[in-house]
Amino acid sequence: MSINTQPLKGIIVPMATPLFSNGDFDKKGTERLIRHLLNGGIHGIFVLGTTGEAASLKPSIKKTLISTTCDFVNGKVPVLVGISHTCMEISIKLAYHAKEAGAQAVVAITPYFFPMDQADLLAYYETLASACPLPLYLYNFPAMTKCNLEPDTVLQLAQHPNIHGVKDSSGNGVYFQKLLAVKTSRPEFSVLAGPDEMLAQALLVGADGGVNGGGNIFPSLYAKLYEAAVNRDMETVQKLQDWVISISDKIYNCSPKSSGYISGVKESLYHLGICEPHLSPPLQPIDKSAKENIRQNLEKLIYGIKNL
Amino acid sequence: MSINTQPLKGIIVPMATPLFSNGDFDKKGTERLIRHLLNGGIHGIFVLGTTGEAASLKPSIKKTLISTTCDFVNGKVPVLVGISHTCMEISIKLAYHAKEAGAQAVVAITPYFFPMDQADLLAYYETLASACPLPLYLYNFPAMTKCNLEPDTVLQLAQHPNIHGVKDSSGNGVYFQKLLAVKTSRPEFSVLAGPDEMLAQALLVGADGGVNGGGNIFPSLYAKLYEAAVNRDMETVQKLQDWVISISDKIYNCSPKSSGYISGVKESLYHLGICEPHLSPPLQPIDKSAKENIRQNLEKLIYGIKNL
Amino acid sequence: MSINTQPLKGIIVPMATPLFSNGDFDKKGTERLIRHLLNGGIHGIFVLGTTGEAASLKPSIKKTLISTTCDFVNGKVPVLVGISHTCMEISIKLAYHAKEAGAQAVVAITPYFFPMDQADLLAYYETLASACPLPLYLYNFPAMTKCNLEPDTVLQLAQHPNIHGVKDSSGNGVYFQKLLAVKTSRPEFSVLAGPDEMLAQALLVGADGGVNGGGNIFPSLYAKLYEAAVNRDMETVQKLQDWVISISDKIYNCSPKSSGYISGVKESLYHLGICEPHLSPPLQPIDKSAKENIRQNLEKLIYGIKNL
Amino acid sequence: MSINTQPLKGIIVPMATPLFSNGDFDKKGTERLIRHLLNGGIHGIFVLGTTGEAASLKPSIKKTLISTTCDFVNGKVPVLVGISHTCMEISIKLAYHAKEAGAQAVVAITPYFFPMDQADLLAYYETLASACPLPLYLYNFPAMTKCNLEPDTVLQLAQHPNIHGVKDSSGNGVYFQKLLAVKTSRPEFSVLAGPDEMLAQALLVGADGGVNGGGNIFPSLYAKLYEAAVNRDMETVQKLQDWVISISDKIYNCSPKSSGYISGVKESLYHLGICEPHLSPPLQPIDKSAKENIRQNLEKLIYGIKNL
Repeated sequence: MSINTQPLKGIIVPMATPLFSNGDFDKKGTERLIRHLLNGGIHGIFVLGTTGEAASLKPSIKKTLISTTCDFVNGKVPVLVGISHTCMEISIKLAYHAKEAGAQAVVAITPYFFPMDQADLLAYYETLASACPLPLYLYNFPAMTKCNLEPDTVLQLAQHPNIHGVKDSSGNGVYFQKLLAVKTSRPEFSVLAGPDEMLAQALLVGADGGVNGGGNIFPSLYAKLYEAAVNRDMETVQKLQDWVISISDKIYNCSPKSSGYISGVKESLYHLGICEPHLSPPLQPIDKSAKENIRQNLEKLIYGIKNL
Repeated sequence: MSINTQPLKGIIVPMATPLFSNGDFDKKGTERLIRHLLNGGIHGIFVLGTTGEAASLKPSIKKTLISTTCDFVNGKVPVLVGISHTCMEISIKLAYHAKEAGAQAVVAITPYFFPMDQADLLAYYETLASACPLPLYLYNFPAMTKCNLEPDTVLQLAQHPNIHGVKDSSGNGVYFQKLLAVKTSRPEFSVLAGPDEMLAQALLVGADGGVNGGGNIFPSLYAKLYEAAVNRDMETVQKLQDWVISISDKIYNCSPKSSGYISGVKESLYHLGICEPHLSPPLQPIDKSAKENIRQNLEKLIYGIKNL
Repeated sequence: MSINTQPLKGIIVPMATPLFSNGDFDKKGTERLIRHLLNGGIHGIFVLGTTGEAASLKPSIKKTLISTTCDFVNGKVPVLVGISHTCMEISIKLAYHAKEAGAQAVVAITPYFFPMDQADLLAYYETLASACPLPLYLYNFPAMTKCNLEPDTVLQLAQHPNIHGVKDSSGNGVYFQKLLAVKTSRPEFSVLAGPDEMLAQALLVGADGGVNGGGNIFPSLYAKLYEAAVNRDMETVQKLQDWVISISDKIYNCSPKSSGYISGVKESLYHLGICEPHLSPPLQPIDKSAKENIRQNLEKLIYGIKNL
Repeated sequence: MSINTQPLKGIIVPMATPLFSNGDFDKKGTERLIRHLLNGGIHGIFVLGTTGEAASLKPSIKKTLISTTCDFVNGKVPVLVGISHTCMEISIKLAYHAKEAGAQAVVAITPYFFPMDQADLLAYYETLASACPLPLYLYNFPAMTKCNLEPDTVLQLAQHPNIHGVKDSSGNGVYFQKLLAVKTSRPEFSVLAGPDEMLAQALLVGADGGVNGGGNIFPSLYAKLYEAAVNRDMETVQKLQDWVISISDKIYNCSPKSSGYISGVKESLYHLGICEPHLSPPLQPIDKSAKENIRQNLEKLIYGIKNL
């Protein structure tokens, strides 16, 4: 268990999981994707998150993905591994695998089947953090899990030596501002913003970074936005944030499906020549017209963002 | 793939999973519980449902539980096995294990991490049903899964030769009545009611049976209520249903926790000398006063129900 | 304040409010509608409920509607008047108007702007009941109000001498069964079921009656279903309930709009020659194809129900 | 109908409504409160919003409050009047009263009884805006109304010459960022942030101002935060925003009640000697210990904020 001395900072990309049409793991595609991310200047890679379709992947793919990523990243940036599961033992085992593979930290979402109360969540994370051989990051995403990890609970958990930060994907600006207050008593605790669309506002009020799915497609855009926010270059922040909103409108929202966001990321990676766009069941592909819209919108975005 | 010729009927008990305090599976306790259920005259056993804490159990316990149950039941009543998971391949593998162990059917809840739309659910169940070596029952529980399997979707899925019925735990009386309409075109499709509290009303309007957690504690009460409803003995139905509501008030609701229902069942089994009351994490135990209330209430219920 | 000695029973029709295209109240249409209801054998009329678009109507229309209804019904059946409002003084004033007009009771939904907790609801109804010059019925409809009037709260309120019953439109079968338990200690407290689709199951387990929007269109169908349930004629209950479900599918659900149910009722009344189909803003009309579907479906329903 | 040439900017205080214990309107208290606000340097006053308990007030109080406010403010800052109601005619009449009293604009929340879809909301606001004699501001608050005014709907409504802006109290940072995109095509359209806790982040990414309940208590704090954000004085923004969060924690959240926020504002005004703390039913008072906590916390906040 390492001592946390400074918060994890910057753009952590929740990496998509390249898959073949038969569901098999695409190792070469994964390496292309990692190279694309590292070239873009991002600050960390998070595998097996929501964007990575962790809940849908079978155990063997999870393990291969972790090993492949750690090997290929080779220490250039931290690798965070999602160990989210409704069964704690499965999470702990995966954390050990991540440790052996060379990952730097693990991330666990709140359990997502049975509704949890705050006492349940406190007990869950304390046990998990003590059992994990790598630093643990909390992950809040009520739209998926039906529970909200309250700021007071996070404040208590931040006292645990092996809990190093929190990723919040709630989209709730009031909640996020209250999470940031945890940093008053524990400045080295990392508070990371989930939804791409909130990246600028989160960074400007003190977030340590963002976990941005759009970073799969345009890693340097997000990395530059982060730098601009750190440097209080408000004009650049505004300009880059406008592109982030365009990506949301033009790529994520091309389909009304809840999973349209993940499809948008994977379709874009396909057009960038990085990997095939297949999702793992139960997620279903978006329809042809949505795919075509993404293709056309992506071209314009590439052109615009290239010329920044 | 067997041909469905008549609906599964009666009281199917969603069996609790006996565990030791260290989390290990309690085989002897499981056998005591099964004997208790069979002696009570129930019509089927459903392992690895919500009451069985399926989402929290590690794979090895799931497999042992299935084998133990099938061996001990030995064909006296049908054994249904929950294969619910967010990863379809894990569900299919478990279905094969159930088949080999001698189970009669499998049950799958709607995927519970990413929000699903009706097209997703249709594709999911069609693929799963075709891949499963045992008859498949649909399972709707929006409070856990955030999605509702609409009656029109169930109607379409009821055309699949390997989908034999549906268990609904929504508690929604309008929805349930619409589910029953599926039986107009496919009378052999089994429609089973989830919440204990709705058992009488469901049976009186045409449900084939109930999946009743309270059957773990008082199997004969539920079996008798089923018989009374079949015989249109309205007075007995009313009298027994009042006891079902008492069990809900006095056992399930002793704690404000969402998981209080499962604790109520397991604490009761403990006082009946069947097994220990431990839950699998992330579910947390209820507090001492709630446990004490259950103990006291259970005594009164036992006395009252014995004298029916 | 009258003493409640026996529960209100039977089919209480939540009467639609006939309006002209300019928004004015249609007095003649209202009289035709009341005559249609009374001829159908229903047991009570509830004006200014959700089906009556109470929240959208201006004060002058509300008053005229109450007077017109009381005058025309002339004591043949009880008239209940909705006094639901977020401002208690407005509710009380309307209750006095109802009293003067000759109505028998008033009905108030839980306040629907600010989220209420159970203590708020208890205080609200106790104050309102004491201030109202007519017997008060509680009204639970969480889909509209965001709050649920818990069974324990209803149990406490049932002790108030001027609170005579509850109408539940939640559609929650577990909740409804618990409401019925209030009758154990206060048998004269009337428990009425809201959604048409649940009428049969509610009556069979002990509800005193139903508040059924479909009764505007087919009053005798609902009255007959009530009689059949009272007489435990299960075959007739089942047959009539199937028609109730058909009305739900073929009339209420022709439009995906939340207000499609009200449009379905009003379009049907239009085709029956009773009144025009206009809604009061902010509710918007359904589209032409939905209107045409309703017209065609209504013809078949009329034919089928006539031949019962 | 005035032509909108520049957006409304700054801190608009949603004014609490001073009431006596018998429910009567407190004119002197209102004047004291207005003087307090004007002295604090705020940029506008919004009467009859959620903080002003508009839904609970009887019509006569609403009218007197509007007249009193317009008279006393006397043009020093714009007065905005809430006309929110489920009945459109009542809203329009109130808008005319506001016009005659000398108010500058009106504000209408989305209708809050029947669930509305986007087509309903579009039609509603277009009709209302055309009928109102004063500029109309949209008001989104899903926690109260169960509906969200989607950014695309706001974009369409922003084309209406009499719709001048939007107040968003959703707390949703993704949504708010998308609202801001409306300003790309209509820069004079005012986008105002609701929850106090989000004020800094909203202003830093381009919001025109905030509608901040805490401004009732500490008007100059919010006004200074606005100025600091306009001047890109990030250090001051951060420091003042920390106080805003303290007000939220120490005043609004002293009671678990949903209405605890309004009680927090009114208790504070009471301790400041401005008016009595009474709420209008159905809102209920918070308990004594919560009142005492507010009193103690307020003292510390006054001391700290005074010394900024």
